[in-house]
Order: sequence, then C-alpha cells, then structure tokens
Amino acid sequence: MNVAFVFPRISFLWTGTSSLVAGQRCVLRQPSSRSCTALSPPWSSSLESLPASESPRLYHIKFYSSSRVLGLIEELGIKDKVNTRVIDAAKLRLDPELTQRNPTKRLPYLELGDGLDGVIESGAIIQFLLEMYDTNHTLSFPPLTAGDSKDQVRKRAQFLQFLYFGPSTAYHTIMPIFFQTFGVPHDKRNQAEIQRLAGDWDRLVVGVLVKQLKESGGPYLMGPKFTAVDIAISFDLMTASFTGVPSLLADPLLAEYFKLISSREVFKNLYSP
Amino acid sequence: MNVAFVFPRISFLWTGTSSLVAGQRCVLRQPSSRSCTALSPPWSSSLESLPASESPRLYHIKFYSSSRVLGLIEELGIKDKVNTRVIDAAKLRLDPELTQRNPTKRLPYLELGDGLDGVIESGAIIQFLLEMYDTNHTLSFPPLTAGDSKDQVRKRAQFLQFLYFGPSTAYHTIMPIFFQTFGVPHDKRNQAEIQRLAGDWDRLVVGVLVKQLKESGGPYLMGPKFTAVDIAISFDLMTASFTGVPSLLADPLLAEYFKLISSREVFKNLYSP
Repeated sequence: MNVAFVFPRISFLWTGTSSLVAGQRCVLRQPSSRSCTALSPPWSSSLESLPASESPRLYHIKFYSSSRVLGLIEELGIKDKVNTRVIDAAKLRLDPELTQRNPTKRLPYLELGDGLDGVIESGAIIQFLLEMYDTNHTLSFPPLTAGDSKDQVRKRAQFLQFLYFGPSTAYHTIMPIFFQTFGVPHDKRNQAEIQRLAGDWDRLVVGVLVKQLKESGGPYLMGPKFTAVDIAISFDLMTASFTGVPSLLADPLLAEYFKLISSREVFKNLYSP
Repeated sequence: MNVAFVFPRISFLWTGTSSLVAGQRCVLRQPSSRSCTALSPPWSSSLESLPASESPRLYHIKFYSSSRVLGLIEELGIKDKVNTRVIDAAKLRLDPELTQRNPTKRLPYLELGDGLDGVIESGAIIQFLLEMYDTNHTLSFPPLTAGDSKDQVRKRAQFLQFLYFGPSTAYHTIMPIFFQTFGVPHDKRNQAEIQRLAGDWDRLVVGVLVKQLKESGGPYLMGPKFTAVDIAISFDLMTASFTGVPSLLADPLLAEYFKLISSREVFKNLYSP
C-alpha cells in the first residue's frame, strides 16, 4: 500500500496547538510548488462579482475536510446541482464578504442557495445533501419510520454513528499525529509522543472501524454497500496515510479496507497532488 | 449568573493530554466526597446478571457527555422507553463484558435493545432517539422531504449543523480550557495559554452561537422553539461555566441564553451536585 502519495510537496505552517481545534489555520509556505496549483485560484475575483447562487455552493480547499463533502458530491453525481468553489487559505481568512458570512473561517462552508444563508460542519452538510439529493438512498440508510425492521433500525443507528465518528472523533485523534509528523524530519520527531498518540488512534479509531468491518462482513463499513460513511472516513484515513507512521494503518482488515476505498476514482482525484 | 455551581467537590485525574481526544479517561480521586454519590453505584453487580435489555439502554456517568443524551431522554419524557444505567469510571474501563462490547471505553454508549448491538457518539445517539421517539417533532425539525418550503430547508440545515456542532467543535474547544483550569489554583494557572484558548472559544463557538441567536430571533438556537440542539450545547456551556473563566460566557446574548437553558429543571437535575 502506498501510504505517502498525498501532499508530497505542500508545506503548511500551523499557528500553534490551537490549530488542533479547528484544523484550518494553515497558510501555504510554498505556494509556488506545482502541487499547490489547485490551492491557488485567482482570488482577486470578489465574491460580490459572482451571480447570487441559486443552487447550494460548497467552499473547498484541497486536502481540507471539505474534501469529505466534495467526495460525496462526486460519488453522488450531483456536480450539476451543487457548485464547488475552490478557494485558498488567504481568501478563507481575509475575504471581507466571506468572513462576514462565515466568521469561523473554517471549511467546509455550504451556502444553501436560493437566497438562504450557509452552514458549517462536514457531517451536517453531508447529511443535508443526502436528504436533498440521495432520495433513493444509494449512498445512505434512510431516517427511521414506523414499522422499520430490526435490521433497518440497526443499520440506521450504525450509519448515524459513523457520520459523526469522522468529524467528532477520528479527526481530533489523527490531527495531533499529523502535527507531530508533517514536515518534521524523521530524526527530529518525538517518537515517544507519536507512539502515545498512535495508541489513542488504535483504541479510539482502528478498534471501532475493525469491529464494524468484522460485524458488517465488509468490504465496506456498512457491509456490501458503499455509502457516505466510507467517503467521510476516507479523509481521516488519508490523513493517517500521510503521517508516514506505518502502524496507523497496519491492521490487516483496515489496510484492506483503505486500499479498497482509496482505489476509487473520486478518492484519487480528491487526494492526488 | 452563577457560573460555578457544578462539580464543586469532584476532582478528576486526567492521564495526560491524550485525554483531550476522548475526554473520558478520568478516575475519581475523591470517591468519598458526598457529591460523588451518583458516580459510584455498586458495580459489583455484573452486567451478566441483568436481564437482556429489550429497550434501548444508555450508559451514563454524571458530568460526562452522556449528559447530552440523558438530557434529551428527560426533556422528551421517554424514561420509560429508554433505560439509563449510571456507572462509574472504573466500570467503564474495567468491566470485562462492557469493555468487550464498547472497547473505546467512551461514553455515551447506547445499547440498541432487542438483541441488537450498541453505538457510540452523542450526536448520533441523539439523532437516533429523535427518529425513534420524537415522531411529532416536538424537539426537532424533521428530515427533508419533497416539497419542503425554503424555511423548512433552512431550519433542517441549521438543526443538523448544531447537532454536529457540540460534539465536533464546541467540545474540543472547551476541553483544553477545562484542563487548564479544573482543579488548578488561580495563582498557578497559565493565564496566557488560557487567554489564547479563550480566543479560539470566542471565534469558533461564541461567534457561531451568537450569530444564530441573532438570526433566529431567539430565545433558543432555532428561534422560539426549544429543541434538542439546545440540550446538546448546554453540556458544553455548562463545562465553560465550570472553568471559572468569566469571559467565556460574557457575551450578553450568550449569557442570557445560558441563563435560560440552565434554569430548566432537567438541566438543574443533570448538573447539580
């Protein structure tokens, strides 16, 4: 398994440990790197000059957690219904109109369209888009209704668990490891701290994923059906792969699962430089 | 506003910064304290000796984030439908049967009942219980369906945002401040670090809540209707109140909101010693 195929020439400058909370405070140190092209659209074009969005519009920076949402949009085939606006970190933090509407300066941010305001939180946006556009439940399990079978109840509960699990738990477990490793030469890494954090990752993330893959029978989290929760967690596993700490994805079942979901065209387009 | 009416005699021993991730690794240092009674049921009674749960069953430790779920159960009036089992930290971490079923050793953990397995993630459990039992949507806004009005779409998107916002963002923003303050004498606190973290809280949490209260018209997050998102965020605001850092809840609109939700009987029962 190729565990270091992303971010090969991109460096982030994280502004201290508070970055853990938002995970969004990075600025590009090497914007001239070829692999950063997608991160640097001309942001001189003011938002005000754009026509009012009738459709929902996602704000996205490559490799940010807005990737969870863009992955869903692409897998669901709704690029014609939900626009994506690729921006850069400077625009996210400094554009007057955008920061007024999204003062947290975090991504993802989804304008609801049709004159409505926008919302944050990747999991919430994924659920919103599923309710809007996945009406046949090709990538989801529907909300409960009277008369649902035991299996439908179980599937919905597990599906909800994993919609929350990425942004609430996996993200906050992998980012401390990312900060300890990204751009830090091997001989300068605090190996004891990395091992301690890797223990958290094993218990809080790997344990949950492997238990689910065993119980569902795989190959996907929810069983034979590829769903939005595979898209959501792929962001955290991608981040784990990029830390270069092999033990994070060493569990055989998890490694097989990551190989499967990272071989999808949408994944490769999202996370290749 | 009384900002320090909880945890008055309970001390936690956090096992290092990794506690940030799970927030659940505490052990009681003063189990004999009278205020700890609710945390220390006789856990010699093995889970195996309990009858198989036909109804869902919540595992809860007072002041843990399972409080979000218990608050919902009580506000929704479904204590007859969802059992709550109050445990202590030792049981959570050491009980062989419970740790086999819930190897993350985190709360909340909800057994689905009826022979089904259990799930973690407070937001997911809240959503699951809403779908199961709030079928008249007294505390929620329903999933989208064809023909929904613009206002229904907006409300659902905002409601989803705030279901995720507590566990994904507010929790991970307040806990670092909690660790810097809880049990640390005032003259030994790292005030510079606390101020830095308080700045994150202002931007990432207060800003979002106040914007929503203004736009919805209040007095609750979703407007005139008290809902599950008020219950969910009350846990994070309660934690903020207990840090004893007055600026965290100083915004007038936020202070008024916290006073309102913390005056509810369910809140007082949940968070009073």
